[in-house]
Amino acid sequence: MHTQEMARLVHGTLDGDPEREIVRITALDSAGPSDLSFAEGDRALAQAASSQAGCILIPEGAEVPGHTTITVKHVRLALARLAEALHPRAAPPPGIHPSAVVAPDVALGDAVSVGPQAVIEAGVTIGASTQIGAGSVIGRGVAIGRSCIVYPRVTIYPGARLGDRVIVHSGAVLGGDGFGYIFAEGRYQKFPQLGDLLIEDDVEIGCNTTIDRGSLGTTVIGQGTKIDNLCQIAHNVRIGRHCVIAALTGIAGSTDVGDYVVMAGGVGISDHARIEDLVVLAGNAVVGAGKVIRKGTTVWGIPARPIAEVKKQMAHLARLPELAEKVKQLSKRLREE
Amino acid sequence: MHTQEMARLVHGTLDGDPEREIVRITALDSAGPSDLSFAEGDRALAQAASSQAGCILIPEGAEVPGHTTITVKHVRLALARLAEALHPRAAPPPGIHPSAVVAPDVALGDAVSVGPQAVIEAGVTIGASTQIGAGSVIGRGVAIGRSCIVYPRVTIYPGARLGDRVIVHSGAVLGGDGFGYIFAEGRYQKFPQLGDLLIEDDVEIGCNTTIDRGSLGTTVIGQGTKIDNLCQIAHNVRIGRHCVIAALTGIAGSTDVGDYVVMAGGVGISDHARIEDLVVLAGNAVVGAGKVIRKGTTVWGIPARPIAEVKKQMAHLARLPELAEKVKQLSKRLREE
Amino acid sequence: MHTQEMARLVHGTLDGDPEREIVRITALDSAGPSDLSFAEGDRALAQAASSQAGCILIPEGAEVPGHTTITVKHVRLALARLAEALHPRAAPPPGIHPSAVVAPDVALGDAVSVGPQAVIEAGVTIGASTQIGAGSVIGRGVAIGRSCIVYPRVTIYPGARLGDRVIVHSGAVLGGDGFGYIFAEGRYQKFPQLGDLLIEDDVEIGCNTTIDRGSLGTTVIGQGTKIDNLCQIAHNVRIGRHCVIAALTGIAGSTDVGDYVVMAGGVGISDHARIEDLVVLAGNAVVGAGKVIRKGTTVWGIPARPIAEVKKQMAHLARLPELAEKVKQLSKRLREE
Repeated sequence: MHTQEMARLVHGTLDGDPEREIVRITALDSAGPSDLSFAEGDRALAQAASSQAGCILIPEGAEVPGHTTITVKHVRLALARLAEALHPRAAPPPGIHPSAVVAPDVALGDAVSVGPQAVIEAGVTIGASTQIGAGSVIGRGVAIGRSCIVYPRVTIYPGARLGDRVIVHSGAVLGGDGFGYIFAEGRYQKFPQLGDLLIEDDVEIGCNTTIDRGSLGTTVIGQGTKIDNLCQIAHNVRIGRHCVIAALTGIAGSTDVGDYVVMAGGVGISDHARIEDLVVLAGNAVVGAGKVIRKGTTVWGIPARPIAEVKKQMAHLARLPELAEKVKQLSKRLREE
Repeated sequence: MHTQEMARLVHGTLDGDPEREIVRITALDSAGPSDLSFAEGDRALAQAASSQAGCILIPEGAEVPGHTTITVKHVRLALARLAEALHPRAAPPPGIHPSAVVAPDVALGDAVSVGPQAVIEAGVTIGASTQIGAGSVIGRGVAIGRSCIVYPRVTIYPGARLGDRVIVHSGAVLGGDGFGYIFAEGRYQKFPQLGDLLIEDDVEIGCNTTIDRGSLGTTVIGQGTKIDNLCQIAHNVRIGRHCVIAALTGIAGSTDVGDYVVMAGGVGISDHARIEDLVVLAGNAVVGAGKVIRKGTTVWGIPARPIAEVKKQMAHLARLPELAEKVKQLSKRLREE
Repeated sequence: MHTQEMARLVHGTLDGDPEREIVRITALDSAGPSDLSFAEGDRALAQAASSQAGCILIPEGAEVPGHTTITVKHVRLALARLAEALHPRAAPPPGIHPSAVVAPDVALGDAVSVGPQAVIEAGVTIGASTQIGAGSVIGRGVAIGRSCIVYPRVTIYPGARLGDRVIVHSGAVLGGDGFGYIFAEGRYQKFPQLGDLLIEDDVEIGCNTTIDRGSLGTTVIGQGTKIDNLCQIAHNVRIGRHCVIAALTGIAGSTDVGDYVVMAGGVGISDHARIEDLVVLAGNAVVGAGKVIRKGTTVWGIPARPIAEVKKQMAHLARLPELAEKVKQLSKRLREE
């Protein structure tokens, strides 16, 4: 793709060679003459000056003299657009691979692809242009929307519903039984797990993440929410729209999460908690059962509290040995008087 | 199913319409005239008064005037019994799916079901009425009891033994190598992982959970113990009977867990620890290597200590800035005298 | 195998019956007359005296009178060598199982084994004597070296490269998309995930562990590093050689880990951190974004600091209620004067 064509695609301003052929996108430090890269911020822009990159995306107001650049409003968005053009994902061919096992009554849209060794049970519906990866198992009655990517080796338990453009990475398990038991007669007996799971449009779910269906009622992952690898979302959790949940986070049963919530990695939230809109949970924060984190607050710690407060306590904790010594001296002095 | 028949099944007392046809179980707030729901506690019972549910299970001593109710001793147990009657799990048909790969010497009991794309290696024995899900891989010499459910895409490494009525959810990996190495000559070399894994009767194992076999000796999960999603149980761990272990919990090598132990989510236990009977580990508690948690105690924190003590320390920690200020004032006053 | 032959194999000194036939290795407390066991340290050596083991490996300077023993320099290394001889892993037969789906242009070395239901996509190269387990999915263009073991139900995303003698346990997912988004126009849009993944020689990766490829650039796992079950390694992380990373550890994007680093279980490291050579992170330690942990230090806590400092603070924290009481008394006394 020529630099000129690229600039047009992202509504950017080209400065330099309009005819340069670009074949791939790569990081600044390893880019060569036929590579596109990007630079944002002083440090990256300084690094860009000595880069071999054939073309560099830069933000408005910046310049990299002696290099071919494309100036855009939003560097990363432009990079994403150009990545789609330069590195289109190698989509598998439409059709059902002969080794797949597909129930006769399955309803498949146009251009659906079902990979080798996949299993699609009875009553499943799959929207147009959706890809089901090799070895995935789609349970009875599951409904999947259009233009979804289900990577290899995913399990979707019976009855789950996925919207459009949902991405599910390898090893994820959607719609498993909630972890609910009745303790009676000296042992745990299974509480009914009869509910379902709804994954709305544009959700992405990471590798080996698990999301349980409701026990009664529905587990919901709201539109546009992104969940990283190895997360656990329990039965009857409701997560709002456009949340970001990083790896190894666990959310226990019936907890409610609002919109635009951010959870850094390793966060733990107990059952029946409420995380309001726009909350940020810093890494490894822990929220107790039934607790409420108010709209827009950033919290941290075990248990999670406003981050400024936690940091203040930590600073005092670090000086605690000193404080104890001071008290000892005071005490001694008083005794001596 | 008629309400009268339902009352009989759970040894309950019907109050209201004995002929009402109930077709499913659902939550109180979404229940309609042909749904069964349940109410326990003041809040749910108040909510029940305005519910549209066709029939409501209630505990002894409660009443919901104007509604058809069934009074029982144990509401949730009754609900579980009725769920089995109203929502029997759609069991796959007995027999081996033609796409499965099953070694010729495998010993299968009556009515065993082996799903599509499953792999059963040589020397495996599977008890009557057990289901092996699609894409699961059962290693050489594994022994599985009667009436087990192995969901799709489970791996059982060679030699593991499972009792009766064991449930293994999708993505779980049972009997993998322990994480043991010898550091010598500047690198880590594999310590022999030759032991085995024993899962006793009535155990349930969550999605994507991993349980390693012993290095020498046996890893044991005791009867009736329930393990949630994404837990890690290391080599030579011994877990007693009727324990409950919530998601994202990790238990390191050779740790001993008693009976009736409860672990909330995100708990971490180091190697060679001993958790005695009836202990409760609150969420994200961490137990150090070789530590002992005494019978019946409830612990929390990093490191885990009796929860009352931890809460007291936390309260003092919250007031620490104030304490530091007080010491500063005292100090100043003494200097001024 | 005779005891004499065993002694020769490990360059050890036999004391006792040279003709005893040994058939397996087991733990001291369950060993019988045809079993080999081992004893290191005073406690194990005392236990060895009453063991029924047919032969016991012991370190130089030790003795177990009345038992057949082999004295060696490094007991565990000798045990590992003898385990290979007595318990060779039952390797699957070379060749492609007829149920596997293998692209026509795949390049397989000598004696490669591809298990049932496996899927090998176009352009894959696999070195001699490597085993691909049942149900594993090897993506387009993946390169795997010699003598690797890929256990059943592993996914390797397109383009990943594995060295020689790499072991990948069941359920692991290698080369998935990094968790990177651009927040614009009120929603998260996918940042390009175009990089790759390099796993060097002699790495072992545990069950259900996930390792993402670089977004731009490469995620690297250095030679000889061992990673336990259920760990998450994010995009563009670089891990050095001969590290040991225990279960449920998460390492966020672009973090740099040196050589010979040890991470106990449940460790969390944020993005862009630097963990220098020979660092030890104790269980559940948390390292913040961009932080540096200096060479050779042992750290613990949230956030992670030198372990001696953390323990001192914890001791003071435990005495904090007492300190608060003391200040109260001082304060009272001053008021009374």
